[in-house]
Amino acid sequence: MALLSDEDLDAALTERREWTRVGNAITREFEVQDFVTAIAFVNDIAVVAEERNHHPDLLISDYKKVTVTLTTHSEGGLTINDFSLAGAIDMLGAGYA
Amino acid sequence: MALLSDEDLDAALTERREWTRVGNAITREFEVQDFVTAIAFVNDIAVVAEERNHHPDLLISDYKKVTVTLTTHSEGGLTINDFSLAGAIDMLGAGYA
Repeated sequence: MALLSDEDLDAALTERREWTRVGNAITREFEVQDFVTAIAFVNDIAVVAEERNHHPDLLISDYKKVTVTLTTHSEGGLTINDFSLAGAIDMLGAGYA
Repeated sequence: MALLSDEDLDAALTERREWTRVGNAITREFEVQDFVTAIAFVNDIAVVAEERNHHPDLLISDYKKVTVTLTTHSEGGLTINDFSLAGAIDMLGAGYA
């Protein structure tokens, strides 16, 4: 799994407009209905993360916000795995919008 | 629900030695076995939080860390509710140690 080139990174970020690059990671904040819904969403993300053996940082804050942060620790930066999982999380998140 | 006085706050922090005061909040980091265990722990915390209608911020990071942050938003600071929930979370956390 190679780090994305600057060019590929730009293309990937263009495709995932809701995500923001922060250093070696990408992050997106979701707002759902309430705390219980936030926990349910985190559980859904966890299933997909575990299946892929690719584990985001997940923050539940302010009762109903879920912030997802992705990076590829083993490579020290962003790989296609991060954007693939971001895409899967976007699809899950659409179910909570 | 009143904010704790400085004196009561000192006493409460002495009782909850694993928790650190950060501004208007208290925080504790737990390290568990793995990501799935971290998610299970977060679910356990969520049940207790929802029962009490007192909702911490919960961060799952680095595969197996769970950071809990407590404050009483309605009061703009720390109340006995925060330390009561901290105690309940410490008991849950002992089951994951």
